[in-house]
Amino acid sequence: MNMLFNRKAIIEKLSTLIDEKRFIHSLNVEDCAIELAHRLCVDETKASIAALLHDCAKNMDIEAAERLGYELNIFQNDKWLYRQPALWHAQLGVYIAKTEFNVFDQEILSAIECHTTGKAGMTKLDKIIYLADYIEPNRSFSHVGKIRANLKIDFNKALLEAYDNTIYYLTRRKRFIHPRTIIARNEAVENYYKQN
Amino acid sequence: MNMLFNRKAIIEKLSTLIDEKRFIHSLNVEDCAIELAHRLCVDETKASIAALLHDCAKNMDIEAAERLGYELNIFQNDKWLYRQPALWHAQLGVYIAKTEFNVFDQEILSAIECHTTGKAGMTKLDKIIYLADYIEPNRSFSHVGKIRANLKIDFNKALLEAYDNTIYYLTRRKRFIHPRTIIARNEAVENYYKQN
Repeated sequence: MNMLFNRKAIIEKLSTLIDEKRFIHSLNVEDCAIELAHRLCVDETKASIAALLHDCAKNMDIEAAERLGYELNIFQNDKWLYRQPALWHAQLGVYIAKTEFNVFDQEILSAIECHTTGKAGMTKLDKIIYLADYIEPNRSFSHVGKIRANLKIDFNKALLEAYDNTIYYLTRRKRFIHPRTIIARNEAVENYYKQN
Repeated sequence: MNMLFNRKAIIEKLSTLIDEKRFIHSLNVEDCAIELAHRLCVDETKASIAALLHDCAKNMDIEAAERLGYELNIFQNDKWLYRQPALWHAQLGVYIAKTEFNVFDQEILSAIECHTTGKAGMTKLDKIIYLADYIEPNRSFSHVGKIRANLKIDFNKALLEAYDNTIYYLTRRKRFIHPRTIIARNEAVENYYKQN
């Protein structure tokens, strides 16, 4: 995998698929993800590609997204996904990554696929993309400063706080919580106690 | 079903299985459950029996509880249950209700079975027992006053607040959240929006 070549091609195509704000966000996530990958001894090229592409389906028209979601069967037996269109772009992004960017690496696709909800058995790369997306410099929501500070000391603690902050946000707004988020969060609790 | 006869027999046996504090709690839950059952047009006798028996396995010795849990196969494919002994008494309570109290009514057993975690597709009686357990007069945790006040006006809103308060409590203490709780809570969100 030639990172420099791929990165340039990815960036060029990505800029045609998402708006400027989302594009800048993706570059920010990439910076954070590479830094975390370096620290956690994860392939930095994979971190870069997954970060750049994690939101590649984010600006898809809602009706087209729903049609594609049905075609890809992502809603079957998952009404909590169907009921939250804000989550669809993760699974649709896997399709776009494959068809538009020729990315077929399963670790990268997995990180894109679970970056909104988390999932059971997340890899280090999955967690890096989830957390980088959460704490990139333009994020300004409540507690993000505390999570960034904790991340400097303890990756697993920061990850758990990101999940719990998301869960708290969703409860406050009376929005659905995807069951996959709870499994991922419970596993983060397990990891937190394993190391502390 | 002869309520008076059954109630006396239940109370007598129950007092031999659980400690005084738990016994008083069960009577309090019964009062609340009967009031809610009356309001929601649910069988008050079933509400009474389910409330009295909901914690009938609560004082079981932890090792005996674990053995019985394995015998009843309640931990299979459910590590989030196994990892939280505080939840076991709900499913073990179903066994005690059947074997010690000759209660075989599926609605009553269901309400006992899901009173700690909630579950998908809860009946009115399930919800009544869950909420009565949460708000009975001796409960004094944070927000219970607000939930009691809301319950006077809006059952579904109060139920949702009870779930969300539980979820918030578990996140604050870095404890596991059972996935069934999230499904029950999401269904409460659905019901909240249906009526509001």
